[in-house]
Amino acid sequence: MERRKVGVLGATGMVGQRFIQLLSNHPWFEIAWLAASDRSAGKTYGEACRWKLDTALPARIAAMTMQPNTPEGCVGELPKIIFAALDADIARDLEPKFASAGCAVISNSSAFRMTADVPLVVPEVNADHLALIGVQPWRKANGGNGGYIVTNPNCSAIGLVMALKPLEERFGIESLFVTTMQAVSGAGYPGVASLDILGNVVPFIKNEEEKMQEEVGKLLGRLSASGIEMLDAKVSAHCNRVAVEDGHTECVSIKLKKKASHAEVLAAWSEFAPLRGQHLPTAPDQPVEYDEGVDRPQPRLDRMRGAGMAATVGRLRPCSLLDWKFVVLSHNTIRGAAGAAVLNAEVLALLGKLDRLNTTGSATEARRAEAVTA
Amino acid sequence: MERRKVGVLGATGMVGQRFIQLLSNHPWFEIAWLAASDRSAGKTYGEACRWKLDTALPARIAAMTMQPNTPEGCVGELPKIIFAALDADIARDLEPKFASAGCAVISNSSAFRMTADVPLVVPEVNADHLALIGVQPWRKANGGNGGYIVTNPNCSAIGLVMALKPLEERFGIESLFVTTMQAVSGAGYPGVASLDILGNVVPFIKNEEEKMQEEVGKLLGRLSASGIEMLDAKVSAHCNRVAVEDGHTECVSIKLKKKASHAEVLAAWSEFAPLRGQHLPTAPDQPVEYDEGVDRPQPRLDRMRGAGMAATVGRLRPCSLLDWKFVVLSHNTIRGAAGAAVLNAEVLALLGKLDRLNTTGSATEARRAEAVTA
Amino acid sequence: MERRKVGVLGATGMVGQRFIQLLSNHPWFEIAWLAASDRSAGKTYGEACRWKLDTALPARIAAMTMQPNTPEGCVGELPKIIFAALDADIARDLEPKFASAGCAVISNSSAFRMTADVPLVVPEVNADHLALIGVQPWRKANGGNGGYIVTNPNCSAIGLVMALKPLEERFGIESLFVTTMQAVSGAGYPGVASLDILGNVVPFIKNEEEKMQEEVGKLLGRLSASGIEMLDAKVSAHCNRVAVEDGHTECVSIKLKKKASHAEVLAAWSEFAPLRGQHLPTAPDQPVEYDEGVDRPQPRLDRMRGAGMAATVGRLRPCSLLDWKFVVLSHNTIRGAAGAAVLNAEVLALLGKLDRLNTTGSATEARRAEAVTA
Amino acid sequence: MERRKVGVLGATGMVGQRFIQLLSNHPWFEIAWLAASDRSAGKTYGEACRWKLDTALPARIAAMTMQPNTPEGCVGELPKIIFAALDADIARDLEPKFASAGCAVISNSSAFRMTADVPLVVPEVNADHLALIGVQPWRKANGGNGGYIVTNPNCSAIGLVMALKPLEERFGIESLFVTTMQAVSGAGYPGVASLDILGNVVPFIKNEEEKMQEEVGKLLGRLSASGIEMLDAKVSAHCNRVAVEDGHTECVSIKLKKKASHAEVLAAWSEFAPLRGQHLPTAPDQPVEYDEGVDRPQPRLDRMRGAGMAATVGRLRPCSLLDWKFVVLSHNTIRGAAGAAVLNAEVLALLGKLDRLNTTGSATEARRAEAVTA
Repeated sequence: MERRKVGVLGATGMVGQRFIQLLSNHPWFEIAWLAASDRSAGKTYGEACRWKLDTALPARIAAMTMQPNTPEGCVGELPKIIFAALDADIARDLEPKFASAGCAVISNSSAFRMTADVPLVVPEVNADHLALIGVQPWRKANGGNGGYIVTNPNCSAIGLVMALKPLEERFGIESLFVTTMQAVSGAGYPGVASLDILGNVVPFIKNEEEKMQEEVGKLLGRLSASGIEMLDAKVSAHCNRVAVEDGHTECVSIKLKKKASHAEVLAAWSEFAPLRGQHLPTAPDQPVEYDEGVDRPQPRLDRMRGAGMAATVGRLRPCSLLDWKFVVLSHNTIRGAAGAAVLNAEVLALLGKLDRLNTTGSATEARRAEAVTA
Repeated sequence: MERRKVGVLGATGMVGQRFIQLLSNHPWFEIAWLAASDRSAGKTYGEACRWKLDTALPARIAAMTMQPNTPEGCVGELPKIIFAALDADIARDLEPKFASAGCAVISNSSAFRMTADVPLVVPEVNADHLALIGVQPWRKANGGNGGYIVTNPNCSAIGLVMALKPLEERFGIESLFVTTMQAVSGAGYPGVASLDILGNVVPFIKNEEEKMQEEVGKLLGRLSASGIEMLDAKVSAHCNRVAVEDGHTECVSIKLKKKASHAEVLAAWSEFAPLRGQHLPTAPDQPVEYDEGVDRPQPRLDRMRGAGMAATVGRLRPCSLLDWKFVVLSHNTIRGAAGAAVLNAEVLALLGKLDRLNTTGSATEARRAEAVTA
Repeated sequence: MERRKVGVLGATGMVGQRFIQLLSNHPWFEIAWLAASDRSAGKTYGEACRWKLDTALPARIAAMTMQPNTPEGCVGELPKIIFAALDADIARDLEPKFASAGCAVISNSSAFRMTADVPLVVPEVNADHLALIGVQPWRKANGGNGGYIVTNPNCSAIGLVMALKPLEERFGIESLFVTTMQAVSGAGYPGVASLDILGNVVPFIKNEEEKMQEEVGKLLGRLSASGIEMLDAKVSAHCNRVAVEDGHTECVSIKLKKKASHAEVLAAWSEFAPLRGQHLPTAPDQPVEYDEGVDRPQPRLDRMRGAGMAATVGRLRPCSLLDWKFVVLSHNTIRGAAGAAVLNAEVLALLGKLDRLNTTGSATEARRAEAVTA
Repeated sequence: MERRKVGVLGATGMVGQRFIQLLSNHPWFEIAWLAASDRSAGKTYGEACRWKLDTALPARIAAMTMQPNTPEGCVGELPKIIFAALDADIARDLEPKFASAGCAVISNSSAFRMTADVPLVVPEVNADHLALIGVQPWRKANGGNGGYIVTNPNCSAIGLVMALKPLEERFGIESLFVTTMQAVSGAGYPGVASLDILGNVVPFIKNEEEKMQEEVGKLLGRLSASGIEMLDAKVSAHCNRVAVEDGHTECVSIKLKKKASHAEVLAAWSEFAPLRGQHLPTAPDQPVEYDEGVDRPQPRLDRMRGAGMAATVGRLRPCSLLDWKFVVLSHNTIRGAAGAAVLNAEVLALLGKLDRLNTTGSATEARRAEAVTA
């Protein structure tokens, strides 16, 4: 099978590097276009990027020339699939341009997550929300084969909703507390200063508690004719930064609508496998793994389960205030960011939503496209 | 004023070292006796101890000879005041022997914290509970001037109850959540292995959640004729170990019985000064300090407030589930252990409960005392 | 090809776990026997071991029953190849017993490294030293097909000698300085206390400087009729422990016998590939990789090169005192321990020295063997 | 005694904060003027600075208004003594302006350290070099009472030269190796990214090796009629960044001109007390402390010796290549930066070089001064 050509927007940052890592040997996708800031255009990726991962930067990628970060700037054919790892304010400007140019924009940014017609998706949790794409104005162009934007949630929300979804399905969720201990890679590079985090805890991450609370509501919400109905559950989040490189650990207390026994909660998790049998390259066999160890999950030991795509839960025990307490952990830059986007793309491929996209690759065509959409 | 002679039992461990540090220049107390395990008896303190603090081990203390860890083993006069930093199982055996020998045992151990006639005290919170001493059998000996045991809470409970007490007094507490991020020094030395905590979080500390939950109930409980009536509030704790040397950070959500505004909560904290004017050397001027910074308190920056004896709170904000959320931090081996015990002793001195203690110092006298109490 | 059955002695420690990790999918070897301390015998490996690696413990291994740690205690057939990860004092007792019972003992311990008739080998550096096996008394039994002991060097010496060997071959080494910054995993588990290393450096590792200095001499020494002639070069080592999980970083200054240019040194490293073409599963393609980055190598980024088996060098620059300065880094529990031993075994297989070994598996046979060798 | 008014230039950075901390209760100096970048002028110090130290920011300082960072911008009287903690390129521009305006500029910057007529001074090591001030053009103005610039060395060089000076005096130094393990605070704030240093070592600090090598030569050099004659010794430095908050640890090997025994080296250090009896507030009693511990010095335990102003040495042992090996440690932002500058100022006060300075405080006067010096 020929691999589909894809581009990475924001390719030099921490999440961008994870995109490179996850896509450079991907069986379905082939990196064909890279862009970051204006500053990097014209350099090779190897020159533009301070590679910070512990696997080697593939030589083919290192030698690729960074392109301008606009559709019309594209030298050659613009890929139809764009993975985007941009800061929110830049994403707000750039992502619609690529959608408008006919691209499927698979975004990790927070810019459009809460926008009504943009699906915020974790495939195991709410793949049905992808239907929202059809409502997007860009998509309606090109006879319904136009571009669109799909987003994945904040790194702190993904692991949590993976643990919550099986419980919501079977028992319903009334309310929950969550206290996070988040890795520094979640803040990008250079991100958190070492003087702030060595031997320390910073009990604050800007806007993170708000994002977690609202994203959980949308992710576990229901797709209706009028859009997503938010989950009707109270969510209270405390977010902290700790001296961990990768992996967000979260302490959760939860009240269920229908009482569930310890065994029933465990069964809900172990039987949760909505993508099984779909043969998606990035989907973990067991999306929610329960570890029986008294002191698990731990970021150093458990973040790479399922190649970094599984959420690990542990320490399920009664809560004296709500019903149950547990700990959930997931890799914040794989499951919580780049891997989440790649899995979104795989589901979109499965659903046929990466076919017949008609991008406008050259500068000339892009300008024509803009004229059309204007 | 002549300083009262004191002993330190368990003097070589992490909390024992903090006792040495806090007592070696104390205006009221003078270290006159040191003991740890049988193994250390006969060595000098300098030989027996791997000093791990960043202030110099005082030469006088380094040269002192470690004594056997029993009252009858004492060479010379046994001090009437014994600060004890022992593991619970050893404390269970040794502390009653010293109380029986006429000593005021100021204990940091968990062994007797929940025992009905043993006061569990944080002076700013429940100094009135010290009256329980009178009920102890050892105390009743010697015409009511016998020895006794007084305890301070677990390091994770102290900062929390300091923040809670002013709220309980003014508004009443109905329920609360607390998630801790605890420093490694709380586990003693060698304690937490570096391979377990570097770049990691361990979401489990043995028995810690249970201790926090029950100790908060006793500390905020009411002294009645029949003993301590536990606070009637639900407490749910999640305890975690993080890569911090000193200082426990705790995220709290709380429901009050009587609604309180943001300003009223802040006022309760800022006006909380039950020991002010008592001139206790170790009492902080402001036991609960509120920091306005959006990202405070932090262990590295705030643990030494009030010479390590203040609790710092920050980030007071509404909780979507209960009433208020905030963060509280305190130094776990000063405020949370050795300093707590020293402050207990200071209050006992103020109340006259360190006077007229009649210890039995030499081996001969101790044996006679045992015969009497047997 | 049928895989050779192997045993792991000291299987539960940090290096033992790496053996499990490296051997559980090895194309040539199959784990058939596990032992650690007497305490663990009879338990399953899963029960006996606190697994600390970030890859899953294979289920087959977890279910294996730990055996007594002596040849005669073996239930069933004793494997002919024993990987040993024991403390030196235990190794001194146990390894000869297994050699005596006919096993090839591939040891990571320091016990016999400097023993005259025991080869201390890094395959890329001095595979020819393996001929020493023939001199060992155990080997001489069984018609020259008896057991033997082969060792690999200390984790701090391996990366260093890999960088030195190409220089010694081409230019000769006159003297060198090396200052190490060693990872905590090198001290085993629990090993280094977190209170000793968080935010700290410990400028001392017991016996480490002595080991490095003498092992380098033997590794770069020449095999002669009368044994190994040590390299005649002065080596001065400073050893430090730093807050790194895995990967030893070493700063080296070196004086060569024959002057070499920057390009010549780089060429010596890049052309160094003594095992190339041998198809050894664990041998890295490029044993010494030079990284051009101004701030490389770094443990977090470079320790996994060559699947953890390559040494990375960087920052080659003139030394104002000797000739050249550079930095070398290698993974201390893979290249520096378990992986080194596995590669030794692969070379032994290649040389035919794992064939015709005749171990005595049952207790009866072992006793007979002991009678013979006594 | 009335305290001399001083200013701090670059007051908001890490070293600037240390200046505030060390000067706010200084018996001789009183902070009367604060400046940092143009951006901060007009704000209060509390607003302009993210205070990162674990002692409280004094309220008086927090309320002070930041001034423009030029002499002529000064509102009110410009202090005659300016402590400067500026980046080198800014210092190169600003420091001469203040010297020209009649100020004694006590600089921590690298800008002029190697300038022939600027003394590079550690008071215990080469206070006599302060005589160079007289050669500076600014000083010659005002009848020889004009301003001047005095510098202290790089944080990595200070501890080293304190350990070296007593050896140079008694035995002479022929050559030395030094490998540093430097704290992150040495890079300022935000400085080192947490992703670069957590669980890692970075074997490179820009220009640091060059600075160490040349500064040691000047510091241990001899003042002659024609300026400083550099020490004629070979120095080879390897510089590394490690995950330590404060305190630089350095491994040194040294060759002496005259052989010295272990006892003679120790005596040289213990008897080294060139400032004893001078009653300088910031001078440590024992500038070089030898610790007998096998694993000392360590940054967490030893950096605060002498209130952060002592250098601690340990592990003196023979070097197989040169003569002796040892470890030296000093606090990089106290002894290695702000404290060094404060001590320089104290010595200048003692020498009468802070008297009769005639600064030009108001904008008008400053401009006149510039006209004169132009």
